[in-house]
Amino acid sequence: MSGENCLAGLKILDLTQFEAGPSCTEALAWMGADVVKVENPGSGDPGRSVGGKSDKDSNYFLQYNSNKRSIAVNLKDPRGLEIVKDLARHADVMIENFAPGAIERLGLGYDVVKAINPAIIYCQVKGFGSGSPHEKNLAFDMIAQACGGLMSITGEEDGPPCKPGATIGDTGTGMLMAISILGAYVRRLRTGQGEHLQVAMQDAILHYIRNAFAYMERSGGKPAPRAGSKTVGGGFPPIGVYPCKGGGPNDYVYIYTSAANPEHWTRLLKVMGREDLIGDTRFGTPAARAEHRQEVDEIVSAWTRQHDKNTAMNLVGSATIPAGAVLDTRELADDPTFQQRGIRQPMAHPTYGEYVMSGWPVRFGGAPPSVGPAPLLGQHGTEVLSDWLDYDNGRISGLRDAKVLG
Amino acid sequence: MSGENCLAGLKILDLTQFEAGPSCTEALAWMGADVVKVENPGSGDPGRSVGGKSDKDSNYFLQYNSNKRSIAVNLKDPRGLEIVKDLARHADVMIENFAPGAIERLGLGYDVVKAINPAIIYCQVKGFGSGSPHEKNLAFDMIAQACGGLMSITGEEDGPPCKPGATIGDTGTGMLMAISILGAYVRRLRTGQGEHLQVAMQDAILHYIRNAFAYMERSGGKPAPRAGSKTVGGGFPPIGVYPCKGGGPNDYVYIYTSAANPEHWTRLLKVMGREDLIGDTRFGTPAARAEHRQEVDEIVSAWTRQHDKNTAMNLVGSATIPAGAVLDTRELADDPTFQQRGIRQPMAHPTYGEYVMSGWPVRFGGAPPSVGPAPLLGQHGTEVLSDWLDYDNGRISGLRDAKVLG
Repeated sequence: MSGENCLAGLKILDLTQFEAGPSCTEALAWMGADVVKVENPGSGDPGRSVGGKSDKDSNYFLQYNSNKRSIAVNLKDPRGLEIVKDLARHADVMIENFAPGAIERLGLGYDVVKAINPAIIYCQVKGFGSGSPHEKNLAFDMIAQACGGLMSITGEEDGPPCKPGATIGDTGTGMLMAISILGAYVRRLRTGQGEHLQVAMQDAILHYIRNAFAYMERSGGKPAPRAGSKTVGGGFPPIGVYPCKGGGPNDYVYIYTSAANPEHWTRLLKVMGREDLIGDTRFGTPAARAEHRQEVDEIVSAWTRQHDKNTAMNLVGSATIPAGAVLDTRELADDPTFQQRGIRQPMAHPTYGEYVMSGWPVRFGGAPPSVGPAPLLGQHGTEVLSDWLDYDNGRISGLRDAKVLG
Repeated sequence: MSGENCLAGLKILDLTQFEAGPSCTEALAWMGADVVKVENPGSGDPGRSVGGKSDKDSNYFLQYNSNKRSIAVNLKDPRGLEIVKDLARHADVMIENFAPGAIERLGLGYDVVKAINPAIIYCQVKGFGSGSPHEKNLAFDMIAQACGGLMSITGEEDGPPCKPGATIGDTGTGMLMAISILGAYVRRLRTGQGEHLQVAMQDAILHYIRNAFAYMERSGGKPAPRAGSKTVGGGFPPIGVYPCKGGGPNDYVYIYTSAANPEHWTRLLKVMGREDLIGDTRFGTPAARAEHRQEVDEIVSAWTRQHDKNTAMNLVGSATIPAGAVLDTRELADDPTFQQRGIRQPMAHPTYGEYVMSGWPVRFGGAPPSVGPAPLLGQHGTEVLSDWLDYDNGRISGLRDAKVLG
């Protein structure tokens, strides 16, 4: 068993750029879909130069485009447009995430493509939804995080709104589109029916903060506040990050005692050598601890400061209390168990060289799918036009000479 | 076209609780899968009482369990275990997210279920992966966010690690499993092959912070830092939240000028009436503005303070510069356009009453799938045993009298 062949035979025509679209098609490529990325012959997906122009593709680009093929086509040339329409005729899925209105101006809107291929699953990712007052606005990940409510609930209680380091507006949206594509594809296999799928990044954010909406409902309807490292509404202490030995920016351990599991607190007291507090009514229940939050946090911090974060995690975690060291990207990259388990995979790329990247974290029969390198711009033009469209070499050379094909 | 019937005929046996597992099966239920939730007859999924015990299900539970059916079975009774094995024999997918080792102790581990139904897609969601040094540890969303690197890159530059308000460890993981289930199901439709899928919440977090890994690679290998409301590494100003009229905790507008698009800055100067600064070399390039970050932020803030956040968003956004008001959960819930577009849907529940919830944000042919209410505990026991297993009424009553069925 393995994940690489799940989607064998699924042809995806990919006109996406940056992250929201590319993360979606990459997930499908990892499971075996044939993803053909159509790019501008000049510089391609602008993601190729995130972090500054260079003669090699950016690491950012490599993250979101592995296992795909690239064809560089000049869409402003009518012959280029014809190539893409030919590809659309043979595709199961077409996807784009251009600025609002751009795909229609290119002459590749849903109505046009549907007329060519009625069974196609045609997918669009935008910042704001059709019918939203902002539907014409540009958006990037951070705009979606602001307008989707996520920044209002991230940050310190008394600080400004903060942006989560994860790109939920981008990859978070891409994942929802990937699920929808596969749902529509399952039906298409059964019925032959095509579909028009659309997702807005602002709307996608709402899906990831439903806890905050639930909290608002159960607490009188006021907006969910920011809660630092705690859960929405603050939870019941101990909860949150506690400082550890070392004093570095990430020398903290997260400790969480579930209100549903009263034993977590007494187990923690034992780990900390504070059996003297077992039965102390100030701390006996989650509600009592919430009333004495500062004292509880001081008791726990006094103990965590004596240990480095990994030791603290091990001592608390092995006592069956949820605990986690705050790990940074360097520590994660240096932990060999991620590579041993296939979660991060060593890669080789013709111009970028060797690197390690996080692949699909779901294991199929014990192993994540293998990750291959991202394509060079236009690397697969000839083979795609031959595979998908049966163009002969003469025709392909002609298109290349005419600069229609990059 | 619509999303509700995409997965018609897909039978999912759902032994999940709280959020990571339930969010996954709910997404599939929204697209038409028949999701049967197996619960403990006493109190069911502990998610039913998140926020405190009550005679009605929690709003939290309703968020993650709509469109499912519930059957309450005592798994500690051998007859209960037989029922679940019978259901597993007829299921396409089985999924669980118990604590490590629990499903095996129940007698429903992969080897047992595979022997009953070799073509089943058997899915497990845990905090840490098999082979991880922490594989036996308990985990919840926040532990995964700490150990998966996300908290190290969320928060103010000089502040402690912060937890994003979105439950990426839970729903973020659930979405990756949903994609994998559908991938395996597509192959199963073609080949009949079953699969064993496993995902760890810690590993799933890595998938959502690949930007931070890319930043680390391009900036000398140091861990990606926290950046407040800015993008990883700080980006090029203006970027981030700027204070608006009102002075409330969310009276901010996000403004982002892309380094790839030099016109954003000059357009913004025009919107702000600061044409005098066009051509000023202190601010002429992204790099120059990064050197004068404080002055740039002051110039922008001086303008944003004169406007409320929605006006600021409209003025900046309509000049084709990415901009977004920081909206809170109350403002989002009160914005009628979300209901008009079907992104949030009015619901009625027999005990909870009326409420509004965010549904699947992807539109199929213009509309998101319809959302139905979450099941009461054990609501569908009789119909599921009849539908899936052809048990007759006498047998079902007997099981109910014996308290095997709740």
